[in-house]
Amino acid sequence: MRTAELSPASPIVVLDSGLGGLTVARALRAALPYDDLLYFGDTARLPYGSKSAATITGFVHQIITYLLPRNPKHVVIACNTATAVALPAIRAAFPHVSVSGVIEPGARAAVVAAGAKKTPVIGIIATEATIRSKAYERSIHRRRHHARLLLRPTPLLVPLIEEGRRDDDPLVVLAVEQYLRPFLQRGLDVLVLGCTHYPLLKELIERTVGISVRVIDSAERCAEDVARRLQTAGLLRGQGDRPAVIGGGAKGVPSGSLRCYVTDDPPRFERLATRFLGFEIDSPTWVSTDQLHALLDDANPQQVLRPAV
Amino acid sequence: MRTAELSPASPIVVLDSGLGGLTVARALRAALPYDDLLYFGDTARLPYGSKSAATITGFVHQIITYLLPRNPKHVVIACNTATAVALPAIRAAFPHVSVSGVIEPGARAAVVAAGAKKTPVIGIIATEATIRSKAYERSIHRRRHHARLLLRPTPLLVPLIEEGRRDDDPLVVLAVEQYLRPFLQRGLDVLVLGCTHYPLLKELIERTVGISVRVIDSAERCAEDVARRLQTAGLLRGQGDRPAVIGGGAKGVPSGSLRCYVTDDPPRFERLATRFLGFEIDSPTWVSTDQLHALLDDANPQQVLRPAV
Repeated sequence: MRTAELSPASPIVVLDSGLGGLTVARALRAALPYDDLLYFGDTARLPYGSKSAATITGFVHQIITYLLPRNPKHVVIACNTATAVALPAIRAAFPHVSVSGVIEPGARAAVVAAGAKKTPVIGIIATEATIRSKAYERSIHRRRHHARLLLRPTPLLVPLIEEGRRDDDPLVVLAVEQYLRPFLQRGLDVLVLGCTHYPLLKELIERTVGISVRVIDSAERCAEDVARRLQTAGLLRGQGDRPAVIGGGAKGVPSGSLRCYVTDDPPRFERLATRFLGFEIDSPTWVSTDQLHALLDDANPQQVLRPAV
Repeated sequence: MRTAELSPASPIVVLDSGLGGLTVARALRAALPYDDLLYFGDTARLPYGSKSAATITGFVHQIITYLLPRNPKHVVIACNTATAVALPAIRAAFPHVSVSGVIEPGARAAVVAAGAKKTPVIGIIATEATIRSKAYERSIHRRRHHARLLLRPTPLLVPLIEEGRRDDDPLVVLAVEQYLRPFLQRGLDVLVLGCTHYPLLKELIERTVGISVRVIDSAERCAEDVARRLQTAGLLRGQGDRPAVIGGGAKGVPSGSLRCYVTDDPPRFERLATRFLGFEIDSPTWVSTDQLHALLDDANPQQVLRPAV
């Protein structure tokens, strides 16, 4: 981390393929009410969940390169797919930037929720790419050898949510039942929502699995993890660090700002964001994918990793 | 068209956001068995259906620029969304290339199928972007003033098909019923499948709307339209124009070749393509989006429109 240049007033970057990461932004807003957030939604190229590791890593690399001149004190990859397939490569590419993801915090919470049971059964629902990466398996098994894991890609849940369907829609109910039925016959103890869209269906999912199953929201756990990292680094922004202003969207609540960047259709993003955040946002800034590609020098990608910030 | 350089042996380019356009490739293979096809699936940036006109036009522009050195005798935009939002701009940008789409042939067939009825009721199901573009409305009303149009975006059908679900899956059946129910109460005469993925659900859709409704497959109509255009231009490739070779994937059938290019995950494309085509393909060539972006000179995009082919 470039701690010499960073202060509690530096912003936190939150990035995702689209809207899903806003559930992380919402949890961050609750956990760190005085911090400024820069949110990047790669809406021209979403979804990431069905794409390859190389392609997703390239996209995330471009986004961080674009936002690096804003001197973020921390970057959160608020997308399970991108965390699963790109986090190690991104940390290696940006050694001076503090970067975290959503999987380790979710896996840690799942193991804690499993309690003292010797061979707890932990279910994970996520995109195809996240499941294929085995990132949750590695992270959970490192902490608890004997956990029995049940993994299932649930690729329809993102389009169902993006279409604006609520959890009382028969199609949503049927999809959740179809996906979770095999889990229920096998004595599930814990279920991890391994995609940042899924918290929007948390109540329906909890009703479907029943009260004996603990449901882990990786977005909330990720926000707690970021708060802990900033506190350790002495970079937490407290109420005393800024005047109590009215802003950041949540009316009447003193808070840091939230500025959004998207690669496509800012009005659509603005319209749908409220459902994820619980409050309205200012108009997002449009960043074309041409701009993102132009940042990279293919011949020598190292050049762009240390811009003069 | 650069007719001086073109011959019946020149290939036909078929482009789409991903797999859907393969239904057009399949229909072209049936209609033009001796022609060589170059198929481009923009799998790193799919789907197009929820994205803006400017973004989609930029993507299509890159793809045609990339394939132009192959000297195609015709380019088919085998995607309703891209046809709806980008066809006029693409024709203007590539004045020497023959380009067609899927909407005009589908609209023409819908009007013919409506027969002599004075105010036929024509339903159209398509992606959000296609519906928003009003391209089908314009095209049908130009031919038949008094047609009553019912339009409905059906954004879940693409992910349901891409997930590999068949038309006996309860979720697919429920989605199709939910989407088509409002149409059935209003005396539908004709239903246009306004997305090149939808022919894979044609039987289920026909069962749902009943035998009194004519269902129009825009992929098949598009292939007929291309054959007619090539015949008019004297560029149709007949059996006599090439030796009867075994190839192009369809085992034992003399045919032209089919070469595929994708921007992400060639193995996944290869695996899923069979369902759309009815035969196996050779391994697709990977083209990175970095390569596509590098083709364009932002300062003077006209430069790339006339490469030395």
